[in-house]
Amino acid sequence: MNVSIIGLGLIGGSLAKTIKKHTDDFVIGFNRNKTVCDFALECGAIDKIGEVSDLKNSDLTILCIYPDATVEYIKEHINDFKKGSLVIDTCGVKEKICNPLYSMDLPFTFIGAHPMAGREVGGFENSLDNLYDSASFIFTPKDEDCKELDFLKEYAKKIGFGRTAVTTAKEHDRIIAFTSQIAHVLACAYVLSPNSMKHFGFSAGSFKDVSRVAKINEILWTELFIDNKVALCEEIDSLIRNLNKFKSAIEDSDEQTLKKLLKESRLIKEKLDDENAES
Amino acid sequence: MNVSIIGLGLIGGSLAKTIKKHTDDFVIGFNRNKTVCDFALECGAIDKIGEVSDLKNSDLTILCIYPDATVEYIKEHINDFKKGSLVIDTCGVKEKICNPLYSMDLPFTFIGAHPMAGREVGGFENSLDNLYDSASFIFTPKDEDCKELDFLKEYAKKIGFGRTAVTTAKEHDRIIAFTSQIAHVLACAYVLSPNSMKHFGFSAGSFKDVSRVAKINEILWTELFIDNKVALCEEIDSLIRNLNKFKSAIEDSDEQTLKKLLKESRLIKEKLDDENAES
Repeated sequence: MNVSIIGLGLIGGSLAKTIKKHTDDFVIGFNRNKTVCDFALECGAIDKIGEVSDLKNSDLTILCIYPDATVEYIKEHINDFKKGSLVIDTCGVKEKICNPLYSMDLPFTFIGAHPMAGREVGGFENSLDNLYDSASFIFTPKDEDCKELDFLKEYAKKIGFGRTAVTTAKEHDRIIAFTSQIAHVLACAYVLSPNSMKHFGFSAGSFKDVSRVAKINEILWTELFIDNKVALCEEIDSLIRNLNKFKSAIEDSDEQTLKKLLKESRLIKEKLDDENAES
Repeated sequence: MNVSIIGLGLIGGSLAKTIKKHTDDFVIGFNRNKTVCDFALECGAIDKIGEVSDLKNSDLTILCIYPDATVEYIKEHINDFKKGSLVIDTCGVKEKICNPLYSMDLPFTFIGAHPMAGREVGGFENSLDNLYDSASFIFTPKDEDCKELDFLKEYAKKIGFGRTAVTTAKEHDRIIAFTSQIAHVLACAYVLSPNSMKHFGFSAGSFKDVSRVAKINEILWTELFIDNKVALCEEIDSLIRNLNKFKSAIEDSDEQTLKKLLKESRLIKEKLDDENAES
C-alpha cells in the first residue's frame, strides 16, 4: 500500500515512523520545508519525498497540518487524489474539518480522524515511532457503516494504537473541549499567576503535572481554541463555577462542604482511573 | 542518634524508611494503630515501637501528623521531649504550626519543616524509601542563624533530599498556596465538570496529568486549605481572572490576544523548567 503523509511535523513525522515500524507500506512524505523532507528520507521515516503527482498513487493520504490548511489543501487538490482512495486528517477539532467536506461530493472517501497523542515539543525533530503506542485514535465518519472505517480501525491497531473510537464530529469537539482543550487553558491560566516565578525550590509534583501542557504551541492552539469556542467556553464556565464553590467553602471555613467537594472529586478520579486501567 | 517519628503514614513511614536507608540512626516509630507499628518494625522501617518515655532519649523528633494534631501533640508532651533536643514537624502549612509554638518558651528547639513530596495514595502501606529523593525540604525557623538549622540542612542532604530552602512561615504559606494547594483545587474543580464521566476513550495525556492530584485525601486537605485560606483564595481569584481573560479572547475570536496569552504562558513555563533543570 502507498501511504502519503502531508506535513512532517510532530504528528506526521511520528505517524511516518510508526507506519514504517509496523508495516511494509511505502510511505511518501510531503513538507513545505525541504530540509525536513531530506532528513525524514535520510533517517528512514519515509521512502520518498512527495510530489503532487504522487497523490494519484496513494491508497491512503493522511493530512497532518493545521485545521485551516487541512480544508484548503483538500479543496485545492480535490482532483489530485487517487479516485476511490481514502483521505484522512489528524486535526484536534472535527466539525470545522468534517462539516464542509461531508457536504461535498468527493471522488475519494474522506474520514475525519484524531490521533490522541502529543508532546510539549513539536516538529519532525521531536517525532517518535512510539508516540501513538496505546493511544486512542478517534474517527468521525460521515457514515459509520463503511468499509473504509473498518479498514482504519484495523490499521490503527496494526500500527500500535491502543484503542479506536467512533463518534460524530460534534460530539468529538464537545468531549475534546473537556479532555484536552480546557486542560491546556487551565495549565496556562495557572502559570500566568503573578506568583509563578517566585516558586523556585518549592515546587512539588502537583505544580509540575498541572502546568506541564502550558508549554504550548500558541499558533496551533489559538486556532484550535477558536475553532471550538462554544464547547470550550462552556468548559471554562463550568471550571470557574467549580472554583467558586471551592473558594466559598474555604473562605467560610465550611469544612463539611469542602470535604464533600473533595471527596466527590476523588471518587470521580478513582472511577476514571479504574476505567482506564480496565480498558 | 535516636530519631523518633510520630505518625507512620505516607510521610512518616517514608521518612523512617529513608533514614534507615541512608544512616545508622536508631529509629523509634509511633502510631495510634498498633498493627501499623508491628508492620513497620517487621519490615525494618523502624528499630523500636515508641512509648512516650522514648521521647526523652530522642535527639531528633519528627512529627508526621495532621496540622491540628501537631500543635496539640507538642503542647501535650512539652515536658516529655529531651531537653535541648530538636523537634520538627512536616505539615504543609507553617503559620498555623509555627506562630503558636514560636511564641512559647520551649525546653527544646522546634523548627517548622515541610518535605515537598507526596503521593495520591496514603498510609504506611504506600510509603517509600525514595519518596524524598531529589525533593525540596523547606524550613521555616524562628531564627535563621542557629546550629540546629545547619544540622537539618546537612541531614536533609544526607538522606537524599535534592535541595533545602529556608523562609518564613508566612512566605512559605503564600508560596505553597500557588505551587501545591491551587494545583489540587483546580484538579478537583476540573474533574467535577458534568462532562467528566463521558470522556472514556478520549483522554489524552493532558487530562491525565492535570487531574492526577484530584485523587485527594479530603480530610487532610480540607484542614490544609482552611488553614491557608487567605493566600489560597487569592490564588483562586488570580486563576479565575486568567481563565476569564482566555474566555473573552476565545469568545471574541481575538486571535492576537489569545496568541499573546498562550505565548506568555509558554515562556513562563519554559523559564521554570530551565531553572529546575539547572538546579
